[in-house]
Amino acid sequence: MAEDKKGKENKDDAKELGITVKKSDDFSEWYQQAMLKSELADYSAVSGCIVYRPDSYAIWEKIVKVSDDRLKKSGVRNCYFPLLIPEKLLTKESSHLEGFSPEVAWVTHAGDTELDERLAIRPTSETIMYDSYSKWIRSHRDLPLRLAQWNNVIRWEFKHPVPFLRGREFLWVEGHTVFATKKEAEDEGVDIINIWEDVLKNYLAVAFFTGKKSRKETFAGAEYTISLESVLPNGRAIQGPDFHHDGQIFSKAYDIKFLNKNGEQEYAYQNTWAITTRMIGVMLGIHGDDKGVIIPPRIAPTHIVIVPILFDSTMEKVLAKCNELKDELIKHKYHDFNISVILDDRNYSPGWKFNQWELKGVPLRIELGPKDLEKGHVVVVRRDTGKKEFVKFGDIIETSKKMLDEMQSALYENSKKIMESAMIEVNTLDDAKRCIDEKKIVLAPYCDDGECEDFIKEETGGAKILNSPLSQKESDTADLKCIRCGKPARLFYFGKSY
Amino acid sequence: MAEDKKGKENKDDAKELGITVKKSDDFSEWYQQAMLKSELADYSAVSGCIVYRPDSYAIWEKIVKVSDDRLKKSGVRNCYFPLLIPEKLLTKESSHLEGFSPEVAWVTHAGDTELDERLAIRPTSETIMYDSYSKWIRSHRDLPLRLAQWNNVIRWEFKHPVPFLRGREFLWVEGHTVFATKKEAEDEGVDIINIWEDVLKNYLAVAFFTGKKSRKETFAGAEYTISLESVLPNGRAIQGPDFHHDGQIFSKAYDIKFLNKNGEQEYAYQNTWAITTRMIGVMLGIHGDDKGVIIPPRIAPTHIVIVPILFDSTMEKVLAKCNELKDELIKHKYHDFNISVILDDRNYSPGWKFNQWELKGVPLRIELGPKDLEKGHVVVVRRDTGKKEFVKFGDIIETSKKMLDEMQSALYENSKKIMESAMIEVNTLDDAKRCIDEKKIVLAPYCDDGECEDFIKEETGGAKILNSPLSQKESDTADLKCIRCGKPARLFYFGKSY
Repeated sequence: MAEDKKGKENKDDAKELGITVKKSDDFSEWYQQAMLKSELADYSAVSGCIVYRPDSYAIWEKIVKVSDDRLKKSGVRNCYFPLLIPEKLLTKESSHLEGFSPEVAWVTHAGDTELDERLAIRPTSETIMYDSYSKWIRSHRDLPLRLAQWNNVIRWEFKHPVPFLRGREFLWVEGHTVFATKKEAEDEGVDIINIWEDVLKNYLAVAFFTGKKSRKETFAGAEYTISLESVLPNGRAIQGPDFHHDGQIFSKAYDIKFLNKNGEQEYAYQNTWAITTRMIGVMLGIHGDDKGVIIPPRIAPTHIVIVPILFDSTMEKVLAKCNELKDELIKHKYHDFNISVILDDRNYSPGWKFNQWELKGVPLRIELGPKDLEKGHVVVVRRDTGKKEFVKFGDIIETSKKMLDEMQSALYENSKKIMESAMIEVNTLDDAKRCIDEKKIVLAPYCDDGECEDFIKEETGGAKILNSPLSQKESDTADLKCIRCGKPARLFYFGKSY
Repeated sequence: MAEDKKGKENKDDAKELGITVKKSDDFSEWYQQAMLKSELADYSAVSGCIVYRPDSYAIWEKIVKVSDDRLKKSGVRNCYFPLLIPEKLLTKESSHLEGFSPEVAWVTHAGDTELDERLAIRPTSETIMYDSYSKWIRSHRDLPLRLAQWNNVIRWEFKHPVPFLRGREFLWVEGHTVFATKKEAEDEGVDIINIWEDVLKNYLAVAFFTGKKSRKETFAGAEYTISLESVLPNGRAIQGPDFHHDGQIFSKAYDIKFLNKNGEQEYAYQNTWAITTRMIGVMLGIHGDDKGVIIPPRIAPTHIVIVPILFDSTMEKVLAKCNELKDELIKHKYHDFNISVILDDRNYSPGWKFNQWELKGVPLRIELGPKDLEKGHVVVVRRDTGKKEFVKFGDIIETSKKMLDEMQSALYENSKKIMESAMIEVNTLDDAKRCIDEKKIVLAPYCDDGECEDFIKEETGGAKILNSPLSQKESDTADLKCIRCGKPARLFYFGKSY
């Protein structure tokens, strides 16, 4: 499509705008540039903490909406507990404390006054919530208690920060639920994992493998942890949302007892679970290309950008039609949300605008110039494939929705391909080492003894155990021997990870 | 209605459940008991910080939804900035720093490491946001920039905490907007104030008086502040949402400049504005009665509680009908939200349930027993008036909505009556003192010189200047003389306040 008269003067801008490395050559550099140049994230005055700019926060709002709707439907209620936790509360459950204390940010002063007791900024809220739970729960009639908080937490990591993927503050939901029986608590796990799988697959278009963490990687204070893990295009795994069954570990430490139906005092069974803003980064890292980020349609803040092709003589007519199309489109829904449309009538060239909106990952672009107007159609361009379709005015709603659906599916399929092509099953330590060197995620038998885990990590230059597929029955694993020690084993995924 | 067989054994519970003082005798004690016993709030392990239990958090979610919808429609976008602010950033605008520094909570350590620089937990985010704004804003094309954050802030007050009304942590939206001209910035004020007035009047059913703060009470760093003030039943005023026009004060301190249309560098014009969780307390404090809290229907987490009257022989039929009614009701919307219904089939007596749901302030109660079932009607009871209506099964949707609307209006009218009956216009300092002693809010001429304000506060045992009605023209105020010094004046509201 021809550039308009403003085209020339903006060419230099367009060059600076883009990402200067190929995604396949240097994923880390590509990722950093993509997050910053698309104006999704920015660094802040606080080392290790980013700014969630409006486009990334809008993605988070949609993740919150679809997750929260599902959690509420399953019976979870939201609440809000204090940000600050007294030191004495944090120390009640010792393995939990050990897990978090190196990363705790401590408040010691208010104004000019030194506090009597240090206060931790919550790294997670088990300890302060369970202090209240122990007061609130008296009888089996008070159970189940299924509360969650959508809030911010601080974990003062000293590793190199990466926008969304690793930083000192993130946003999340933390669910903390209490049940009268272990079975009810474990049944909740199935519901929660289903919700996470639904959100990742159908909204973020992110493929994942679900499994149980090794003993060593189990959450501090949990009996077991189930995680959804995904694979980035550089072959690195990254942990997504999770579910922890705590058994009676916390209820014993925080004295959460209830009178059961037989009139006896009993310790309650607990779970915790979470999904975090990290998923924004996982999603964007998987889907982007050399032109910029690509946002899956079902979670995109803007579904469609309309770029008019403007010449002085036809400007008025073309803009009027673009406005008409926009007004029509925004009356409709695309799945859970209203269709969101930007009409970009700024005084820049179409080419410059195309580049900018591709960088920002808007799923569909509609182009409309004077010739299109005469012919009664628009050009609709898919962000992921660049495929163009001429669409009659009357078909725009239906065709846009269809193209958005096709794009959503294609992105998920691509994510699945990235994941599956990274995975390989091995039976020896040597094969595991070789495949991990080749940036693979290996599936291998492991005894679930922390010592072997440390050894394998050392030998492979840092590969961690990710999780263990849930579907393994005793009969499947009967012949499996740990690749390091030869003892009875189950299959686990190993790989380098964030 | 007759109590069922479980009635007797639960009678003692019912007595403990209720509030033990009259609202008109001791508002403070009533308020504390009402917030705790209705399970809206609880104290926490951190002094001065409360737990927002699910019912109060659900109210907040609805306040967020209706406010956020309106703000987004007006062009505001949400974002998220770090919780922690480096000390050097906080100190850039000196009057702002002075306003907040006595209440700042300081982070000094992470894990075992002492930080190089202290970090403040945000008491408000001007300083960290404007640091980014100064990087992002280059040209008039980047303006207006209208961003907001829904987040948590800490202000370490040393006064006695009161749930929702005063505490060390609260939730809010903080809007921070930037414009190319003073006029555009001030025009935004009209939009924002309209939104706050809409939310208070039509959702919270809270009456207010809008006006400009005195110079002394203007927000630290603002040119002027507009506030909505409300009146609690004890005659005390309390500040609600606000709007601050900052002129170029912050843009000069934080170097927020742009190239204007004439190619010249210019400092931008800024506003900030907020609504906070305090409004939950204002709303509940105004509307409650001796039986408990009363939640305005348009913001209520639960609109209707169905209490079946159960006897062994008819239990099944009655419960089936109750479920049918519930299923029908929740298909419908009441204004912005789906109708939310609880069917209370717990094994307690109807009387005990009536007391509990009245304590919790659910707007409508539907009673259905075997005789009602025969007659094809239910009893619908309004929480605020206790008025009962027999409603045919087929009319339940329509009549419920009508009763909810009537209740919503009645609550607002009552709030307006409380406010108006507290207000009185006076012209002398003696009259002002006498009326303030009588728990009135006085409207009196004042010169807007801080010294007179301090004097009046001293003389009246603590009355503060609340705000000054916006509608005053120069011609209206020409003859007004300050009640203390006799200099030219405008009318201001004075009163004891939270």
